[in-house]
Amino acid sequence: MRAEILATGDEIRTGALVDSNSAYIADRLEGIGVEVTRHHAVGDHLETLAAVFREMAGRCEVAVVTGGLGPTQDDLSSAAAAAAAGVQLVEDARALAQIEAFFAKRGRPMTASNRKQALFPQGAHCLYNALGTAPGFQMALNGCTLFFLPGVPNEMRAMLGEQVLPQLEQLQGSQRRHRLVRVISTFGQTESAVGETLAGLTDRFPQVTLGLRAKFPEIQVKLYLNTADRPAGEAMLAQAVAYGVERLQPYVFSLNERTMAAKVGAMLLQRGETLALAESCTGGLAANWITNTPGSSDYFLLSAVTYANAGKVKLLGVSEQTLAEKGAVDEETARQMAEGVRRVAGADYGLATTGIAGPDGGTPDKPVGTICIGLATAKETLSRRHTLSFGRRLMNKRLFATLALDLLRKYITGDLKPR
Amino acid sequence: MRAEILATGDEIRTGALVDSNSAYIADRLEGIGVEVTRHHAVGDHLETLAAVFREMAGRCEVAVVTGGLGPTQDDLSSAAAAAAAGVQLVEDARALAQIEAFFAKRGRPMTASNRKQALFPQGAHCLYNALGTAPGFQMALNGCTLFFLPGVPNEMRAMLGEQVLPQLEQLQGSQRRHRLVRVISTFGQTESAVGETLAGLTDRFPQVTLGLRAKFPEIQVKLYLNTADRPAGEAMLAQAVAYGVERLQPYVFSLNERTMAAKVGAMLLQRGETLALAESCTGGLAANWITNTPGSSDYFLLSAVTYANAGKVKLLGVSEQTLAEKGAVDEETARQMAEGVRRVAGADYGLATTGIAGPDGGTPDKPVGTICIGLATAKETLSRRHTLSFGRRLMNKRLFATLALDLLRKYITGDLKPR
Repeated sequence: MRAEILATGDEIRTGALVDSNSAYIADRLEGIGVEVTRHHAVGDHLETLAAVFREMAGRCEVAVVTGGLGPTQDDLSSAAAAAAAGVQLVEDARALAQIEAFFAKRGRPMTASNRKQALFPQGAHCLYNALGTAPGFQMALNGCTLFFLPGVPNEMRAMLGEQVLPQLEQLQGSQRRHRLVRVISTFGQTESAVGETLAGLTDRFPQVTLGLRAKFPEIQVKLYLNTADRPAGEAMLAQAVAYGVERLQPYVFSLNERTMAAKVGAMLLQRGETLALAESCTGGLAANWITNTPGSSDYFLLSAVTYANAGKVKLLGVSEQTLAEKGAVDEETARQMAEGVRRVAGADYGLATTGIAGPDGGTPDKPVGTICIGLATAKETLSRRHTLSFGRRLMNKRLFATLALDLLRKYITGDLKPR
Repeated sequence: MRAEILATGDEIRTGALVDSNSAYIADRLEGIGVEVTRHHAVGDHLETLAAVFREMAGRCEVAVVTGGLGPTQDDLSSAAAAAAAGVQLVEDARALAQIEAFFAKRGRPMTASNRKQALFPQGAHCLYNALGTAPGFQMALNGCTLFFLPGVPNEMRAMLGEQVLPQLEQLQGSQRRHRLVRVISTFGQTESAVGETLAGLTDRFPQVTLGLRAKFPEIQVKLYLNTADRPAGEAMLAQAVAYGVERLQPYVFSLNERTMAAKVGAMLLQRGETLALAESCTGGLAANWITNTPGSSDYFLLSAVTYANAGKVKLLGVSEQTLAEKGAVDEETARQMAEGVRRVAGADYGLATTGIAGPDGGTPDKPVGTICIGLATAKETLSRRHTLSFGRRLMNKRLFATLALDLLRKYITGDLKPR
């Protein structure tokens, strides 16, 4: 079964808005074994819309259209679908009842333009929208089923998942194929190095497709398998994942798409241990990532974002002499920051970053991209220094924060290499 | 002059990757008055690619294609273009020299598959890629000029700006129109409230198009004007901006697309004042935003991310009695946090957040979405409490941090309402 996807609206056509709906829809359709062959985007223009509807209907069995269901004059999906099919627009009683109920529930007045949203091409079927005012619809055109969904992402996603995908699964019947996906999240190697490490994987597992994706600074390895036999496919994919993980160690940090911060947090939670951070160059980014996980207060106590040196001395007890002699960006300073924040917070681990994120502030000795990390534990204090070659401040901050969290991760797992 | 855009690659077709290139290209083309009429995306499939090239050439004067220029067997743009035009692939001497120079400069070996990247359809012209291995090319097909650019965003953007747009501006000649854009960044009103406030704008300035865009938690108002007469257009747009800003005050915080944190930073820099933060519920996000601006160390001293109560007491001197009697999420606690961090850091302003980001931790008294903000200055200490209705943790963190920075902004501008 082949499908095409159309995003509508002048905001998308002119580039004011990036269309992320189409990728979402493609991913979900491919996930149930429907082959997505084309995406399109056009503006709010009746004749163009009708022409694309007819083109899609001539090429594939399923089309999913987003946008153009609102109450304004620019919302033309229904009228264009009627024009494409050569039928009239008629008021759909089910759609009208939904719109009326939506407004009644919120105590807001319903306008004449909202009533327009219940006009569908003759023969179309209403799709229920639990989250917004715009019902969707589906209709047959030239042997193709077209689904019309709102452009608002959460409304579209709910309707796709609850009303479109189940129909498509049923339509596929015995032909149904599953696309299985597994993700290996890695950090510490370049995309091409990861690719070389896995060069033998698809020879060994010819049914598996490999995709590498930089989610800076992580590299995600995606393994895909299309199969009619789900259990057999899952078993083979598990073997391929195990093969990949073995070769990629110690760079693998998650097999369930956790972020590095969420992974470190889960490890701390499981061990009943606590973390305090002392951040200079990462400017609060590591703490922000850690606290994005609900319940992080169970293991995260404090981050002292000591951007100015005075804070390093006053809050963390870093020695003024060390700062004067070695500077803020130094492994000894990082160690003292880590020890200081561990002591102040009463944490099991103190983890510190100090470096030069750029674009300015570099020296021949300590160029932009220099990062010193300190880790203090009950047993010992360690430090590492890296010099990275990314010129961009925000990339450096991400890389620095990930390097620090990864150091703690490897310390806990025992994968930390001696220097 | 009409243009269409095509993104290629199985990662985009299957939804593994969101295509943001097409929106960027559309925005740049519309910016010089080229009307973008359609976007497409298809996978790495020779016949489909060739078919779409021919379709586009039959409908418009310009087409921009991204992706498919790499060294692997999946990279089919050149072969498909040759097939669409019915010509041979030939080695382009200029392209080959570029690829050789790229590898020589980096001291890396050039493979046979890289040599394939110099094969272009007969009659095509090479486009120089200063940032990667893949040169692009342009060719004429049925009266349409097709531009082929790499899919890597920074390479594509550089080549579009330096080699494609100048040609299109010249091709348009006296027909050339300019699309002028101005952005008003607002915070504190809903999208629909902003829309209602500006309901009269397009009646008063009928040539201006209005677009509202939620960049959560900001609402951006975009004003567009298409004109052949640039100075007259700019003057009219400036009037429309002034009209909009007057009505939207005090919610406007930037007219040059600065973030709230960058705006507050610029105000502090200009005044020679310094800031220290005490963050509980925002977990380092405010500090992270502030330190995303290069040079922020000139005005940002410290953030104490005191997630656990012990840190509030120990580092900031918050009274244990206040915490016991009123709790961590309280205006009095926020005031003591702000005063404490101001004192510890020796800053002009101390700004504090404490609240409940969710999804758990709410009580009937202090539901999820409750945020208390404290601001300490040399003259006084203020606080505010809000209860917001967003259920999602990451949205709440963004909203809380923006509310805090906006409180400081309004304090400085004198726009802070007495309670």
